[in-house]
Amino acid sequence: MFILGITFRIFAENLNMYQYQYLFDFTQSVFEKMGLPVVEARQASDILMRAELRNISTHGLMRLPEYVSLWQNKRITVTPKFTVVHETPSTALVDGGKGLGLVTAPKAMKLAIEKAKTAGTGWVAVRNSYHFGIAGYYAMRALENDMIGIVMTNANPLVAPTFSKHGMLGTNPIAVAIPAGEEPPFVADFATSPVSRGKVDVFESEGKEAPDGLLQDADGNPTTNPSALRQGGALRTLGGDVPHGGHKGFCLTSIVDIFSAVFSGANFGPTVVPTLGYVKDKAGAKDHGIGHFFGAMRIDAFQTADEFKAGMDEWIRTFRQAEPVAGQERIIIPGDPERESEVRKLKEGISLSKKSLDGLKKIANMFEIPFEEQ
Amino acid sequence: MFILGITFRIFAENLNMYQYQYLFDFTQSVFEKMGLPVVEARQASDILMRAELRNISTHGLMRLPEYVSLWQNKRITVTPKFTVVHETPSTALVDGGKGLGLVTAPKAMKLAIEKAKTAGTGWVAVRNSYHFGIAGYYAMRALENDMIGIVMTNANPLVAPTFSKHGMLGTNPIAVAIPAGEEPPFVADFATSPVSRGKVDVFESEGKEAPDGLLQDADGNPTTNPSALRQGGALRTLGGDVPHGGHKGFCLTSIVDIFSAVFSGANFGPTVVPTLGYVKDKAGAKDHGIGHFFGAMRIDAFQTADEFKAGMDEWIRTFRQAEPVAGQERIIIPGDPERESEVRKLKEGISLSKKSLDGLKKIANMFEIPFEEQ
Repeated sequence: MFILGITFRIFAENLNMYQYQYLFDFTQSVFEKMGLPVVEARQASDILMRAELRNISTHGLMRLPEYVSLWQNKRITVTPKFTVVHETPSTALVDGGKGLGLVTAPKAMKLAIEKAKTAGTGWVAVRNSYHFGIAGYYAMRALENDMIGIVMTNANPLVAPTFSKHGMLGTNPIAVAIPAGEEPPFVADFATSPVSRGKVDVFESEGKEAPDGLLQDADGNPTTNPSALRQGGALRTLGGDVPHGGHKGFCLTSIVDIFSAVFSGANFGPTVVPTLGYVKDKAGAKDHGIGHFFGAMRIDAFQTADEFKAGMDEWIRTFRQAEPVAGQERIIIPGDPERESEVRKLKEGISLSKKSLDGLKKIANMFEIPFEEQ
Repeated sequence: MFILGITFRIFAENLNMYQYQYLFDFTQSVFEKMGLPVVEARQASDILMRAELRNISTHGLMRLPEYVSLWQNKRITVTPKFTVVHETPSTALVDGGKGLGLVTAPKAMKLAIEKAKTAGTGWVAVRNSYHFGIAGYYAMRALENDMIGIVMTNANPLVAPTFSKHGMLGTNPIAVAIPAGEEPPFVADFATSPVSRGKVDVFESEGKEAPDGLLQDADGNPTTNPSALRQGGALRTLGGDVPHGGHKGFCLTSIVDIFSAVFSGANFGPTVVPTLGYVKDKAGAKDHGIGHFFGAMRIDAFQTADEFKAGMDEWIRTFRQAEPVAGQERIIIPGDPERESEVRKLKEGISLSKKSLDGLKKIANMFEIPFEEQ
């Protein structure tokens, strides 16, 4: 029994466990087969694999079938034209030419960083784009340039505004990456809904009820049914009901929608053409894709870089050393768990969920790319 | 009985009811007596009175005693030097010279707007300042210039980070004002905590328990005791516990703290020197005041102004016309209730709470300014 137990554990630990480079190369091959140029296929793979390393697997390889399906349905172009439509010294509007966000977003973030070099800050709104993976990937690009990165995007309409019967806003994430000196950077990267759609999918696939207060059914009544989203229901805003500040969550998610989609002229809120089969398409003829918003601010835009870094070190240490409540080990600085996960998974490998694995196997068959089941 | 009922209602409606101009002039006189130049005293009165009109009375005349007390304790200067310490084409750091936020913030917002005129966007961080009233006041300044306004500030440490035993962050508000074309503007102005400190004070003064999940006691345990803040307890972050996204609220409130105080070199998080008697001072010798962050973006920074305004009109109408859940009349566009309140209170007058009234009477006596009790 004891030996059996150990054997089983070793087996379980190795189940669906892949080395980083193996999955990276496979993913790059998929994008190449779709027709992306090598450099951009590598870039796209890097974005998804970064999500895997950072333990945000809902935005990693699990999304690959969605990208393949956008390509099959001809909703995206694999060699899109990147056009700067309008600009000022610190801003630009980019038309992504119906490319994947994975292709357009790295260029848009680079443009924001270039603008910031001369103007102190750079802000780029993007339309005619599609899902771009984790917002944090782009925000962290700023760090290498001694800049603060700020990234937002809108998404499939699944979140019900306060008092609304239906989902009208995306889970609209915000990422903010802020460099420090001796301390690792502060990296916040979060859906502005209380949980992401991926988390609700996990409750559903595990047959668990969702926690109270997160979901509403098709009539707008509170529910804990994890299938609610597929049945015409919606996520509630961060905070939940009004006495708990849910209207603030509505403000926050709305701001991300407006910055991403109204600034750029992309489809906003309920008019986003869904990439999910169970979300109704309300856009009609107009499809300007989803919108993103990218910001970069030089850390020496306000003080000297040294003063800024010393200040961030002090901020991070103050909060990291704070006294936790009973039963908790520490106060978590945004970005700490993801950074620790990167180190661990690079060394130990990446374990894929059944859902991710099934998706990869299908894609491997379709494109005739070898894929070894572990 | 019937007649008595009506009489009582008329009496109750007129109780502590003042005309806008009467309170405006009184408040201006108080700031003049403190030694503010006439123009700045009028400006400071305008900010507090705007909070009254917008039905955010927790940031209106109720705060006047706090400003008087900062002046009596020599923590503020009434004629502070406004110094631009560091700048780039789109950014500036301002030292507020230990003035009231009510004096420094209008100038800082003006500077952000000036920067935006040439650079497309303008961003100003401020240190050595104090409470500035409602963040929305400054964000709305951008509207008159066909710009988007973004304003943040940090505050007394009352909010406990996720897993923290103690309050370490302010209720750190964000305001975002976005112009539209034919529709009135979108104006979100909210404390990033689930409720403001003022709301908790109201529960306490009315002898009501606070809703579940908003507060923790001095040991970090959940409580509904509305006196918790005075007894070493803290507010929780927007979202509450981790399953409901409270860690996202922590990220949000942290971002406001860093943008306001680390960017500027003001006192951050738990090092803010409190203006509340019951909050412990952890700053030690260092007092660089609280920090603010002001942003202005031209609406034609990304598209033409006409395209932008048409897009915002469409956004606002789409959400305003959405179907509400049973029992609710409408989906509220951020800024709608406050704008409606302004129209009503300008016409019908402003009703003061007992707390506000008591504060004003004391100040009237102290400065020997006539104040008529209604």
